[in-house]
Amino acid sequence: MDKITLGHGSGGRLSHELIEEIIYPIFNRNAGHELLDSALLSIDKGTIAMTTDSFVITPIFFPGGNIGKLAACGTINDLAVSGAIPKFMSVGLIIEEGFLIEDLKKILKSLYETAADAGVAIVTGDTKVVEKGSVDKIYINTTGIGYVPEGVTLSPKNINVGDILIVSGNIGDHGMAILSKREGLSFGSKILSDCAPLNDLTASLVEIGGISCMRDPTRGGLTSSLVELASQSGTIMEICEESVPLQPSVAAGCNMLGLDPLYLANEGKILIVVNPNKQKEVMDVLKSSPLGRNAAVIGIVTAKDTKGKVLLETELGVKRSLLLMEGEHLPRIC
Amino acid sequence: MDKITLGHGSGGRLSHELIEEIIYPIFNRNAGHELLDSALLSIDKGTIAMTTDSFVITPIFFPGGNIGKLAACGTINDLAVSGAIPKFMSVGLIIEEGFLIEDLKKILKSLYETAADAGVAIVTGDTKVVEKGSVDKIYINTTGIGYVPEGVTLSPKNINVGDILIVSGNIGDHGMAILSKREGLSFGSKILSDCAPLNDLTASLVEIGGISCMRDPTRGGLTSSLVELASQSGTIMEICEESVPLQPSVAAGCNMLGLDPLYLANEGKILIVVNPNKQKEVMDVLKSSPLGRNAAVIGIVTAKDTKGKVLLETELGVKRSLLLMEGEHLPRIC
Repeated sequence: MDKITLGHGSGGRLSHELIEEIIYPIFNRNAGHELLDSALLSIDKGTIAMTTDSFVITPIFFPGGNIGKLAACGTINDLAVSGAIPKFMSVGLIIEEGFLIEDLKKILKSLYETAADAGVAIVTGDTKVVEKGSVDKIYINTTGIGYVPEGVTLSPKNINVGDILIVSGNIGDHGMAILSKREGLSFGSKILSDCAPLNDLTASLVEIGGISCMRDPTRGGLTSSLVELASQSGTIMEICEESVPLQPSVAAGCNMLGLDPLYLANEGKILIVVNPNKQKEVMDVLKSSPLGRNAAVIGIVTAKDTKGKVLLETELGVKRSLLLMEGEHLPRIC
Repeated sequence: MDKITLGHGSGGRLSHELIEEIIYPIFNRNAGHELLDSALLSIDKGTIAMTTDSFVITPIFFPGGNIGKLAACGTINDLAVSGAIPKFMSVGLIIEEGFLIEDLKKILKSLYETAADAGVAIVTGDTKVVEKGSVDKIYINTTGIGYVPEGVTLSPKNINVGDILIVSGNIGDHGMAILSKREGLSFGSKILSDCAPLNDLTASLVEIGGISCMRDPTRGGLTSSLVELASQSGTIMEICEESVPLQPSVAAGCNMLGLDPLYLANEGKILIVVNPNKQKEVMDVLKSSPLGRNAAVIGIVTAKDTKGKVLLETELGVKRSLLLMEGEHLPRIC
């Protein structure tokens, strides 16, 4: 077999073959966890985190990754920024009839390897096949479970006036990589998605203490994460445009296309809100990791404010409010 | 707003409005559980069950339910038949641009109400919107977590020669309801999907003890569940065709369309493999519930067999092997 057929989603013989010959050999190597209809997981008393994401990105293969790697990273990172240690993941596939089995294998291998490297076991899954035209190639849902270490309670409610805002590296890489691949554009050097699992880095950061809250600025970019945090914490956050790390090729792409990098999606970056007395330690940990070597302090929480507000000091010295993106300038970015 | 736009999946202002004005008011009433990007759940030491399913059914509104109710039931029932008490659920939506907000509300209300009635809290979610033509209306992923009571270990490995096979009611209702709605057929009385959450019933059954294993015979029908169990337990299962409960209108539909009800999907039925000394108690519990009042003993585990086999004694007294369905005769049934 080289293409997915409707029979692969029937629950009959072909479904079993797809699962046993294609999916199991890739996923079932997760030590100690059989892939079951309903996975049984032993856990200790405490708090677990649960998160879900569906991935509908186009194109499914892009510079720096593919939809499988992204599906693993997205869910791992949602858990990671909540302070949890990601442990288990489910994978739900919706595949278009006619999809190449070879491409499915590549995608599932990336998903598996990314999860395994991050210490996450894929424990259960589901595969649906729909007629040609009823889905665009393949969509993947990943749902993750993680342990929250005792005493860890990251939340916007912890954010205080004086807290420092740090971003863990160059912003906008993922958004610009997808956009340039889609449009066949090139801006000097090739732009790669920053798609990466951040759980090791967040675990080191959480160990330092003093972190009020973290977010992964994906859809809607850094701005959406800042606006959400300001609103949820009831604070004014001021950030300085020229402090925000940005690689030149992404800046060039944004200039050419009239896009604001503050709204571009990231898939391997963390926004950290930290007590000023831990700023140095946090920056040291970030700088010592390949995933955080371009980290920068970008702003500070300046005041309480019931509705919350984010102010951007531009390179011209003007301060303006940052608002959530209106409408959609880049659909299916993740 | 009356239709979903791409902006509703942007991560920007419209996304926030969709979540806060449409989704939260429906889902956020789940007592004590805020809907978070990454939900934090307190749990006791023990075993949890995790399951995932994507729902791609067409039509999305059908006699006896809709895709929202189905998405809740499907995941609740996967947990229930594993012996778990369903507790938490995530909801991942993939919506086509132009989808009616009114329909979305109906679907989410059904999903919420079904989950709430079953004691399941919706704790986290995700919404993606794709361009017209990139998905057929709406697909929903639900992933569930349940507690497994101490000492409960249902598994095909428990199945012994002499165990009794019971089905909790009429088979094929869901498959035939969808098919007749799609094709505009009618077979005397209107056929409704049996779509229902089974967790209360399974909890009562598990309490009796003596149950080796349970399955919910969805895609691929009763046959697929039997063949899987026979193969996984290494046994021969013999069932008697005339014992299998079937309502006359479904039988009529199958005759007219040349379909075998043993392959039709069910969304509110349980296949139970039980020690003979608990058969009476199990049947009593089933018969006393509206969800089990048509329950019937359909067969017995007759022998050990390395590869596993299911034999059907037909109404003519002939015994033949039941095999997994070849290909697909009814795509997008769930």
